[in-house]
Amino acid sequence: MNNIAYYNGKTSSIEEMTIPMNDRVIYFGDGVYEAVYVRNHKPFALYDHLDRFYNSCRMMSIDFYMNRDELTAAMQSLINQVDTDDECMLYWQATRGTAPRNHVFPNPSVKPNLLAYVIPKSIPPMKNRVKLILVEDRRFFFCNIKTLNLIPNVLASQKAAEAGCDEAIFHRGEIVTECSHGNISIIKNGALKTAPLNNLILAGTVRKHLLEFCSTNGIHVDETAFTIAELTDADEVIVSSTTTMIRAACEIDGQPVGGKATELVDKIQNGYLERIGRELVL
Amino acid sequence: MNNIAYYNGKTSSIEEMTIPMNDRVIYFGDGVYEAVYVRNHKPFALYDHLDRFYNSCRMMSIDFYMNRDELTAAMQSLINQVDTDDECMLYWQATRGTAPRNHVFPNPSVKPNLLAYVIPKSIPPMKNRVKLILVEDRRFFFCNIKTLNLIPNVLASQKAAEAGCDEAIFHRGEIVTECSHGNISIIKNGALKTAPLNNLILAGTVRKHLLEFCSTNGIHVDETAFTIAELTDADEVIVSSTTTMIRAACEIDGQPVGGKATELVDKIQNGYLERIGRELVL
Repeated sequence: MNNIAYYNGKTSSIEEMTIPMNDRVIYFGDGVYEAVYVRNHKPFALYDHLDRFYNSCRMMSIDFYMNRDELTAAMQSLINQVDTDDECMLYWQATRGTAPRNHVFPNPSVKPNLLAYVIPKSIPPMKNRVKLILVEDRRFFFCNIKTLNLIPNVLASQKAAEAGCDEAIFHRGEIVTECSHGNISIIKNGALKTAPLNNLILAGTVRKHLLEFCSTNGIHVDETAFTIAELTDADEVIVSSTTTMIRAACEIDGQPVGGKATELVDKIQNGYLERIGRELVL
Repeated sequence: MNNIAYYNGKTSSIEEMTIPMNDRVIYFGDGVYEAVYVRNHKPFALYDHLDRFYNSCRMMSIDFYMNRDELTAAMQSLINQVDTDDECMLYWQATRGTAPRNHVFPNPSVKPNLLAYVIPKSIPPMKNRVKLILVEDRRFFFCNIKTLNLIPNVLASQKAAEAGCDEAIFHRGEIVTECSHGNISIIKNGALKTAPLNNLILAGTVRKHLLEFCSTNGIHVDETAFTIAELTDADEVIVSSTTTMIRAACEIDGQPVGGKATELVDKIQNGYLERIGRELVL
């Protein structure tokens, strides 16, 4: 198949899949999700996505019914059914089940719904530098949970696209938090600085890998929130996400930025590609 | 029929209705909604709900394709098909259409999706006083739009239910904003105080009617945010929403509250029932 969709055990193409109107995602966006890079029919860093997924469920009090092995097997079965060894994305989400609309949680006998799909999706070349815009961060204070309440991210992404940019950087006043679908870090004087893990940002898997690379390669890491002034003055600005991996910026709000530590950026990007190659046995 | 569901022109029972997986509500909660009180096969204050709905669409840049008359006709047709003259709720939502998952808006040729339903739903007696709890308001700063991103409201409502309460009052620090599905006002020394319209609260239709009643009945209104201290010290605490109308509180976090201006509460509630009776010709 070219792509495959899954809903509570049923499979079809994405275009044919339908879900019941009373799935709580319809009225409340009441669920959590993950998106995983796939190549060679193997999911990359699935262990990290599983960690975060079960953590999101826990913080949302969603009592998901599959354990890690069961969920892994279900997702691998989908991956296996897509006819390409090239890059794909595996997406899954769990919602709080199907029940008549009511804010209060349904009866505990109502099981969560699992929706998933796999589609071919190429990662844009990491060497291409990205253009960014700044957008005031007006999101809620549950940003540590990977939820399906994504309207502010949608609106910011659209604003970036309309400005001919790749991504929007969120800031709360002077403080930079993250991007509309990725984390943001800066490099200054050979050290990496990125916002700490709290309810203002998502614990990105690529952010985690980036910090792991720094720690094993003698690059100092400072997990402290930085300001817009530090951002625009940085030697490099790094955006990290599952679907775009690790990219450096060339522009913020139309002004040139970064480009002063290209060797370090290359080293980080090459290190990441090597890690992917190693883990996926490419 | 006992209830009726609608999706882009198709009708069925709520239980049978399904929607495509790529409706953007599924991945992003990317839409807006309204809930309307219905009795005697007539929607109450539909004009106010329509005003707010088109305003929500505008703020979300959702280019909804039906005008007021067309939407009214479609909704009235649903109302007519439910076999009861008793109280019902009409619910509808518009999402940004169906397209492969991507934060950025789909091509403008993609039409919004309209989902709706009508179900029998009784308003609990207004004379019953309600128990409330305080919950920190961690929502986003788009609360003036009636969106489908309702996780914080869901979590707060659940917290209230677990505490044996009817509703959760949101506060940002010392400042009271609104409830998890309604506005909140206080009465002190014969005057009504309620938070002003900004991006911290929804412009409730019942809030609007409450202020109209006050203005035509010589009750002073102060649209200024009030504090938790003012709330607990108020003569009366009033919660207003479409599905519960106008109710006074008896308890907040287990402590008695209000009950010191019962005649004024009666007058407001009776005035509201009279307005409903007049407009719906009961």
